[in-house]
Amino acid sequence: MQYLESDPVRLDEDRENIIVIDQRALPEKLVFLKLNKAEEMYDAIKTLAVRGAPCIGVFAGYCIAILAKSVSGSFNEFRNKMAEYAGYLESARPTAVNLSWALNRQMKLIASMEKDKTDSIREALMEEAVRIHEEDIGLCLSISEYGLSLLHDGDGILTHCNAGALATTRYGTGLGPILLGTKRGMRFHVYSDETRPLLQGIRLSSYELAMAGVDETVICDNMAGLVMKQGRIDAVLVGCDRIAANGDVANKIGTCTVAILAKYYGIPFYVLGPYSTIDTDCASGDDIKIEERGSEEISSLWYERDFSVKGVKYYNPAFDVTDHSLITAIITDKGILRPPFEKAIKEIRGAKK
Amino acid sequence: MQYLESDPVRLDEDRENIIVIDQRALPEKLVFLKLNKAEEMYDAIKTLAVRGAPCIGVFAGYCIAILAKSVSGSFNEFRNKMAEYAGYLESARPTAVNLSWALNRQMKLIASMEKDKTDSIREALMEEAVRIHEEDIGLCLSISEYGLSLLHDGDGILTHCNAGALATTRYGTGLGPILLGTKRGMRFHVYSDETRPLLQGIRLSSYELAMAGVDETVICDNMAGLVMKQGRIDAVLVGCDRIAANGDVANKIGTCTVAILAKYYGIPFYVLGPYSTIDTDCASGDDIKIEERGSEEISSLWYERDFSVKGVKYYNPAFDVTDHSLITAIITDKGILRPPFEKAIKEIRGAKK
Repeated sequence: MQYLESDPVRLDEDRENIIVIDQRALPEKLVFLKLNKAEEMYDAIKTLAVRGAPCIGVFAGYCIAILAKSVSGSFNEFRNKMAEYAGYLESARPTAVNLSWALNRQMKLIASMEKDKTDSIREALMEEAVRIHEEDIGLCLSISEYGLSLLHDGDGILTHCNAGALATTRYGTGLGPILLGTKRGMRFHVYSDETRPLLQGIRLSSYELAMAGVDETVICDNMAGLVMKQGRIDAVLVGCDRIAANGDVANKIGTCTVAILAKYYGIPFYVLGPYSTIDTDCASGDDIKIEERGSEEISSLWYERDFSVKGVKYYNPAFDVTDHSLITAIITDKGILRPPFEKAIKEIRGAKK
Repeated sequence: MQYLESDPVRLDEDRENIIVIDQRALPEKLVFLKLNKAEEMYDAIKTLAVRGAPCIGVFAGYCIAILAKSVSGSFNEFRNKMAEYAGYLESARPTAVNLSWALNRQMKLIASMEKDKTDSIREALMEEAVRIHEEDIGLCLSISEYGLSLLHDGDGILTHCNAGALATTRYGTGLGPILLGTKRGMRFHVYSDETRPLLQGIRLSSYELAMAGVDETVICDNMAGLVMKQGRIDAVLVGCDRIAANGDVANKIGTCTVAILAKYYGIPFYVLGPYSTIDTDCASGDDIKIEERGSEEISSLWYERDFSVKGVKYYNPAFDVTDHSLITAIITDKGILRPPFEKAIKEIRGAKK
């Protein structure tokens, strides 16, 4: 059994460059990019060479640590230049929460070290970047352990989009229990929705599950109902982008359809994500705005031909909201939440205080 | 408002050639093929230049009429050569029921005219071909009228795959009520599933609805649940490939998923097709074999890149079966069937005897 050769984001041995898997080239080619300049880092985020919210966060932490090596001068000069870099990187994907979160964490560290030598700050930034990375691995492992406790050897599992190692740093969230269980010798049969329009299932999940030696079948999104009806699916595992206070979950477009199918066929539907994905500022899914992306992603991206027709509209919502009533359990690094979710979320938050 | 320039299959003015819309080139280009040789006709069926079960049947009727023009000799020589042509054309798509049905109908006509002159037989074959064509137009118009009686001005309608004029001869089945109602000045807003993997929705439905001036939005298959949740859909209209005696319906892959979503959101789900689609030899959908097609249709067809990964399987069922309990009504040329379907189908068959 073979895993991804490396985390999708890591440092080289000398800690002079960031090595990332270029996710644009998958699954045909495994290409590593070696980055140490701000422009290269910006492009990697902007063009989705690096993607997946946790993965972008880890990458951003390392970006600041690497860029700091070539910045000198007084504390103020150093801090101002680093702030400039952080603002520049953040502008590559302004809506990516983990990106700004990791950049802010590094900038706060700098602010707290006004009395220290630049070398010490540089060292602290590198340690902090490694810490962000390790924390993410820890989170994913914890989610994977909790998730695995709900699976059985031989299970057929349906996934949607890619919430695996490529989107995080190791194991992933949605695919985490599968990768962890496979490592321990369990056998699953995984069905991956291809996930139109950006094809994260057929391009990325298929690649990383194949690397991990998982028995896998890719289907078109509209085939999920049939494989459930045929009795091939024992559980559905998906990641999440945001969880409201009542347990409604925003995730990749198509997730709510899979949840309705699972409910109809009596199959458990599990959502996996870090505790930090719970956003209690959102009372319900109605408060979550659905991002709409360009029509060309549907009509011509990937294709040899341009299928767009004059006068026809192409509606491209990137996410949907799955109602909490369709969810069997939400699996976080702090534990497994069961309905009623509003109460379970309040309790887990109380326990954290 | 503009319709398709012509039926997808028709004769030229001199009745020397068949003119077909090359459906492989849509939606980018409207290409007409002019056919009068058996090899050209075979290729048109084989490579899906002509597609849609009723459309293939009409085409086959004309093929025999046109080919007969260049065959002479004794009655037996004529009949044998025509039987050879029919066998050749049938081999282009051996599972297309309408193809063999139309070819057999023409061959039976020949067999019944042993005492007639070859010229008379040729004339009769041409008349029969025109009759097959006119019958199909009549069927579609009748289905469209019944279907339209269930719709309201301003309705939002979801469709899956292409069961429109391109698949039949005029109006179509699934899209028939939309095209007929639009012609009469009604306004609908139609959402077309793109229909992976063969993309009949984004390539063909989008084209013909745009030509007819219908307000239309194409979505990926996995977005159907969201547009229903948003309240954009008042009715779902789909065609059908086979209807079992209990009302279970085989249709393009993804249909059963749309039906489950419609049930969940309380939206009427209508199946449209000719009475002849009811196959009482099938007691239920369990008796209908699901055709499985090649994996390359998922992993690489249409795409600029080949997304196939070594070791990964690609499951490509071409159809699924929608349980009768999910269907609001089945709309045929003989009338609208309502649950319980087993009883309604028995009654309509009794009335036919």
